[in-house]
Parts: sequence; C-alpha cells; structure tokens
Amino acid sequence: MTLWNQVTIIGTGLIGGSLGLALKQRDLAKRIVGVGHRQSTLDETLFRGAAGEATLDPCEGVRGSDLVVLGTAIGLFEGILRKIAGVLEPGAVVIDVGSTKARVVRTLEPLMPDGCTFVGCHPIAGSEKRGITHARPDLFEGATCVVTPTEHTPADVLVRVVSTWQDLGMVVRQVSPEAHDRLLAEISHLPHVLASVLVRAVSQEAEALIGPGWADTTRIASGDAVLWRDILLTNADETTAAIKRFQDILADVCDAVHRRDADRIESLLAEAKDRRDRLTQR
Amino acid sequence: MTLWNQVTIIGTGLIGGSLGLALKQRDLAKRIVGVGHRQSTLDETLFRGAAGEATLDPCEGVRGSDLVVLGTAIGLFEGILRKIAGVLEPGAVVIDVGSTKARVVRTLEPLMPDGCTFVGCHPIAGSEKRGITHARPDLFEGATCVVTPTEHTPADVLVRVVSTWQDLGMVVRQVSPEAHDRLLAEISHLPHVLASVLVRAVSQEAEALIGPGWADTTRIASGDAVLWRDILLTNADETTAAIKRFQDILADVCDAVHRRDADRIESLLAEAKDRRDRLTQR
Repeated sequence: MTLWNQVTIIGTGLIGGSLGLALKQRDLAKRIVGVGHRQSTLDETLFRGAAGEATLDPCEGVRGSDLVVLGTAIGLFEGILRKIAGVLEPGAVVIDVGSTKARVVRTLEPLMPDGCTFVGCHPIAGSEKRGITHARPDLFEGATCVVTPTEHTPADVLVRVVSTWQDLGMVVRQVSPEAHDRLLAEISHLPHVLASVLVRAVSQEAEALIGPGWADTTRIASGDAVLWRDILLTNADETTAAIKRFQDILADVCDAVHRRDADRIESLLAEAKDRRDRLTQR
Repeated sequence: MTLWNQVTIIGTGLIGGSLGLALKQRDLAKRIVGVGHRQSTLDETLFRGAAGEATLDPCEGVRGSDLVVLGTAIGLFEGILRKIAGVLEPGAVVIDVGSTKARVVRTLEPLMPDGCTFVGCHPIAGSEKRGITHARPDLFEGATCVVTPTEHTPADVLVRVVSTWQDLGMVVRQVSPEAHDRLLAEISHLPHVLASVLVRAVSQEAEALIGPGWADTTRIASGDAVLWRDILLTNADETTAAIKRFQDILADVCDAVHRRDADRIESLLAEAKDRRDRLTQR
C-alpha cells in the first residue's frame, strides 16, 4: 500500500540508498527523489534504482514531497533543515536515520515550520561498509528501528512513520530521544570505542598472530571515522558514562585474574556466556 | 606422506577431534587412537572417523604411539602426563594444543622420560563452539599454529612437529613459551576479558536493542567458561598487564570524548580503522 506520495532522500549512502530500494520494492512511495552533493553518487543512485529522480539541490529535491529523509552525516542535518525548511510542503514529515537522537531531535524539532513534523528515527541496520554501492533492499528486514517521538509529535504522523519502518520488515521500538542515547551508548557506542582501543592496543609483534576471534571482536572499528566521530560527539555524556561503568567492571575482573581467583573468574565468565547465549539466540 | 606410525589423541573435542580427522584425511598417521573420559565421546569419535581405535585408559592408549597429543583442558595436562610418562614408547613425542604455553611447557618438559620430548603447540583455530560434534578436517587450514620450542627441544623433533602442522595447512610461527603468552594475552586473552565484561555491562533495558555489531563484538564471550578460566589462570600476569595497557588507552579516549575533542576523536578512530583494515585484509 502506498504510504507516501513522494519521498525525498537526502544522502543516498548505505542507509539512504537501501531505504530507496526498499520503499520501491514494497511499493510504499509513488515517487522517490534522491539528493546528494556528488553527481557520481546520484548517477549510481539512479542506476541502481534507489531513486527515480535525483538532484544536487536539496530545495529542489523536497518540492512536492510529503516525506523527507535526512540520510547524511548527523553533523549536516541542521544546515540542511535550515535550508529546506522554507520550501517544505504543508504537512510534510521529516525524519532522519542518524545514530544519536537527543541532540538531533532537540535541535531540529524547533526548526520545523508550523504544520510540519520532525520525527527522529534510528534504523539499527548496516555494517562497517558504507556507500550506495553496498545498498540493498533487504537491509532493514528483521532489524530494529528506534523511533523517538516527543510531546510535539502528532499521533497520526507517528503512526505513519512507524508503519513505514514496520512495512520494511523492521521491529519498531519507541523511546524518548534521551533514553535512546543512553541505551545506544551501552550497546553500540561503548562497543565501538572498545573495538577501536583494542586495535590500538595490539603490539606490532603480535600482529602476525591475529585470528578470526580478534577480527570479530574488532569488526565495528572498521566503521567510518567521521561518522563515528559525530556519533561520539553528539552522545559524549552517555558514552563517557558507559565507559566509566565498563571500567569499573573491568577493574573488578582484572583484580580477580591478578589474584588468580579461579571460582570468581569462572563465575564471571559463565555469567557472561549464559547471558550472551540467551541474548543472541532470540 | 606418513609422518607418524601411531598418534594418540587424549581429549577428542573440537581441536583433538578435528586433528584426528585432518591427520587421517592427509594420511599423516598410520593409526589414530582416541582417549577420553566419557564413552559417549569415544563412540562419537569412532563414528565420525576421528580415530580408528579408542579407549578410556590413557596408559593403554599411548602404548605403541610415537606421537601423543594432549587435547584436554590445560588444567589436566600435568596429571595425565604423570600417569603416562612411565609407559611412553622410547623416543615418543608429546605435544599439546593448549592456549597458554609458559606454565604448560615449563611444567611438562621436566616430567618427560629421557629420550622423549615435549613440544608446546597452539593451533589458533576453533571457535566458541566445542566438542567432537563440531570437529571438521579443514579446521586448521590457513590458520596459524604457534610452536614453542625450548633449549631442550631436539632439532629433528621440532622439524617433525612443525611439518605436521604445516601439512595440515597451517602457517607455523616459532616463539618462546613466554613470548607466546605475552602476544596471546594481547590478541586473545584481553579480547576475551573485554567481550565478557561488555556482556555484563549491558543493562536489562538495553537488551532489546542489541544488534549484529554487538553480537560480533561479544562473540568470543560465548566460549567455554572452564576452558577460559584455565587460560586466564595460567596466563594471569600477562593478561593483567595487557588489561592495564588497555585501560590506559581507554582512559585517554574517554577523556577526548568527554572534552568533545573532535580532531582527536577522529584521528583515534581513523588510526584504528586503517590499522584493522590493513591487518584483516592480508
């Protein structure tokens, strides 16, 4: 069922491009317009069918659209919204797909013209790969999307946005922008910091011995540095809080190893194994 | 080419069982004997063809063997070797496949009868899965095996042991038992501790949002708790030293995030990404 008349995706990288392909495949939008800042990306977007039309000009791109998706780096959202706010269609909905929410939502929501709504969204999909060349229509299937409504979000708009992600096969969870950032700090931003530090902690001498376990543990450290810089910058307080909690638990385990406390070490490891097995078997 | 007349594998789990299958497939041993402490494991070992004969009695099992492989948990090595030392064939070679080496080698080497040799080995293969049911003959192909000779290791024995692992498709690296433990603390034991702590650090509220990135980062935490307890216990000093180095770098990154130092954060992330991409593309 067509949910939207025209969707404009600003930033057709891995997520934006996959969204275009998925919306088209499920017939959720009559027209899809891609907006980018490089003609080569737009050419690839059209070639792959992630959009039917494309333009370098965001103001031209959003004309006639009832849904606008911000798919660029988080740091660019505010500048883009200030540029397009005046030319949005009456009643238009703007969503983003950024990885942090509190600062994004609290900054963008007040910039929306009367009658238009911003809804923060975070589809937890993708990988350390990026760019339109890795886009695929099934990227979102079975994954979780966090939608972060506020006291200003009209219920009917929220329903349409949630339905869109659900129609793409996602499990939608609704939490406040602040809760999103606290939870994502734990399960995504902290792990990213740890993986990066772990890569840096390896001595040159040990490099020759790294195997598949190390490669798995550090995989997310291959994510784009600028993208992750923005994530950490826009969620600095929650991320440092999560790091500090981690440091406390790590110090505890380090102490048990140092004391060669066999029972304590075994129970710490067994507890982690049982919990992970339970969480990943769902 | 048959390298060994008879190989006895004591402990036919994932590694021991896979070794039996691989030796047989490559025709490196005329006979393979499996030794275990559960009849059901031995039945499965014979059924899968990882050994041609099997026994619950290690002394009976090593009779006639020119190669004996210790494939049980590290903590059992000493007791097993004390039991079988008196019945080893003249000139027999004993190797292990344990994940730490200094304590193993320095404890077992003096227990060997005159004319017999112990050589520490660590095939870096396997996964969080364990047991004979996951054994496969290609487990070692393309992976690294660390062999840890000492001043007491005869050159001809070392050559036969190294050749065996190479004939199974492994890249063999030779370092001292102490260097092995220092390097493995960095690339394996530290990551295991971090993965376990990361699992414990997740709040119940955040559980619902975990995705593939988290699952990858924590995968090794699903390893067997008793096996890993022994690894950490027998490499406690190097592991705590590696944890402390990690803590220092982590504190540095945490400080950069807290200060919202965009340039510093980006360069830390970019350096980690570049290094990981280089190390995993080989």
